[in-house]
Amino acid sequence: MDGAKNAEAADLPLLIVSEEVCEAVVSRADAFTAVEAVFGAMAKGDAWNFPVVREALGHADALYGFKSGFDRAGLTLGLKSGGYWPGNMAKGLTNHQSTVALFDPDTGRLQAIVGGNYLTAVRTAASSSVSIAHLARKDAKVIGMIGAGHQSAFQLRAALEQRSFEKVVAWNPDPSMLPRVEAVAKDAGLPFEALERDALCAEADVIITITSAFEPLLMRKWIKPGTHIACMGTDTKGKQEVDPAILMDSTVFTDEVAQSVTIGEAQHAVSSGGLADSAIVPIGDVINGDHPGRSSDNEITLFDGTGVGLQDLVVARVAMDRARAEGRAQSIIL
Amino acid sequence: MDGAKNAEAADLPLLIVSEEVCEAVVSRADAFTAVEAVFGAMAKGDAWNFPVVREALGHADALYGFKSGFDRAGLTLGLKSGGYWPGNMAKGLTNHQSTVALFDPDTGRLQAIVGGNYLTAVRTAASSSVSIAHLARKDAKVIGMIGAGHQSAFQLRAALEQRSFEKVVAWNPDPSMLPRVEAVAKDAGLPFEALERDALCAEADVIITITSAFEPLLMRKWIKPGTHIACMGTDTKGKQEVDPAILMDSTVFTDEVAQSVTIGEAQHAVSSGGLADSAIVPIGDVINGDHPGRSSDNEITLFDGTGVGLQDLVVARVAMDRARAEGRAQSIIL
Repeated sequence: MDGAKNAEAADLPLLIVSEEVCEAVVSRADAFTAVEAVFGAMAKGDAWNFPVVREALGHADALYGFKSGFDRAGLTLGLKSGGYWPGNMAKGLTNHQSTVALFDPDTGRLQAIVGGNYLTAVRTAASSSVSIAHLARKDAKVIGMIGAGHQSAFQLRAALEQRSFEKVVAWNPDPSMLPRVEAVAKDAGLPFEALERDALCAEADVIITITSAFEPLLMRKWIKPGTHIACMGTDTKGKQEVDPAILMDSTVFTDEVAQSVTIGEAQHAVSSGGLADSAIVPIGDVINGDHPGRSSDNEITLFDGTGVGLQDLVVARVAMDRARAEGRAQSIIL
Repeated sequence: MDGAKNAEAADLPLLIVSEEVCEAVVSRADAFTAVEAVFGAMAKGDAWNFPVVREALGHADALYGFKSGFDRAGLTLGLKSGGYWPGNMAKGLTNHQSTVALFDPDTGRLQAIVGGNYLTAVRTAASSSVSIAHLARKDAKVIGMIGAGHQSAFQLRAALEQRSFEKVVAWNPDPSMLPRVEAVAKDAGLPFEALERDALCAEADVIITITSAFEPLLMRKWIKPGTHIACMGTDTKGKQEVDPAILMDSTVFTDEVAQSVTIGEAQHAVSSGGLADSAIVPIGDVINGDHPGRSSDNEITLFDGTGVGLQDLVVARVAMDRARAEGRAQSIIL
């Protein structure tokens, strides 16, 4: 219709960047770079997340809300809105629905609407990858996956780029889903083995947990010295993936301490008194060189990836900039 | 570009409704009907506003945030985002920038992006109009305006449709702005008089305050029995338009009690102990017939219009439905 013009011709246009274009223009490396930079900016106070809004609607069993923030360093402002609609699968839609809106920090005008489903997957994968890059042993050889759902493939693909891994091991409550993880290993030319959890911990130098568990799946006694664990599944009060004793015996890093201690994996160790808030290190401090990160080959490091709005905003910013530069953004006069 | 199709042809499209289309398809009467209905739904618990996010950015002196909510009765879900950018005027843009996003409550998918600047003006005007319709004396003849800024014209035009007013009186801190109010009176064929505040109160049967004041502009002793006052300017802690003694001697109504006592006009009377939270009546109770409203011709009624996200959402819903029905929405595949 009349308002649809290309980006060059339009006066102050609103850009629309589809899911399909996001997949085409935002690579794993792009997401890594953007997420690493914003974690650094957060630790310096140059970027911050606003309070999260999350509401049970009492309709369609849906959870709905927003994560928002401002990256003053990168001048990225906006929100990710959406939520969880459990009935969507039956309609041929994904249960998690996300859309990112970016605003011009100089004027407040809506700049872009960016599909958020693919971006949520890559920014979550980038988060554990950043932790592996900065915290795992350089000589890590075996990576273990706890969880084989949709997101596990994204986490593993991104993780494999951070170290010279030689083998993938995995466990899932429902073993019939393990071929998803195996396929990623095969694509990377790596051997794959399905293992019980204790055996997985005995082999793995790096472990990513990406489940919806509400109880510990990994026990302290199984974890060998030097392991790096990225706990990516716990994003709500009550969820839990690992034994709190693991956090007590680790150096614990996170994206945002405030979320880590309330809705992240650290909630259990903190509420039981076994871990002090002040002992949790923002991973941005490591990125910025203000914390040394891993102190020895025997240390256990644990990254509590809770997921913050700024991760979504900075990858959406990449999508917007690339789509505009490549002429792949639709442009609308609002 | 390729993704721009008309609403009929597209599969699950995102609709874009421009400011221009909003102005064309949402009338004052539409806004009145939608806002009245959602105030009623709020009072029944069938619609509620989510926590407001509001942040000072430390960039461009901007205030930015979201108001959001869910009208389960009307199945309208979404948010208004935007804020206040004081430097915009110099760039030829309005200082207040608003955009509404509507989501499908059945699936969580983004349904529409709707320009929010005009809608904010008409929904705010609808709010005081609803209060006049339900609370002012039937025989009200003179309407008084305190404030002559951009929004005052919207408030007055909508108010004039609620009673058989015969005269408009007005005051503004800067008298040179009064011609804006006078022009609306002239358009309606009504006489206009600029008055001092005490004289205005002596004449007016209905008063609308729509200023950015931080101190009382109207004193208790000036207000005559039977007056209806709609206080529309106070939306932040610290702002104030009228003497708290007026609220103590009135029956106080509001859009949302929680906002009224914290950021609305009632904040001062409540914090000083002169007015109990429990004495403030949701105007939805009057709309629903659960409160009688005005009890006598001598009662002073005061409406504290704080402005809630649901007002924005329901007028945006009208804009979306009308624009789609009339083929005036741009349609995009996200």
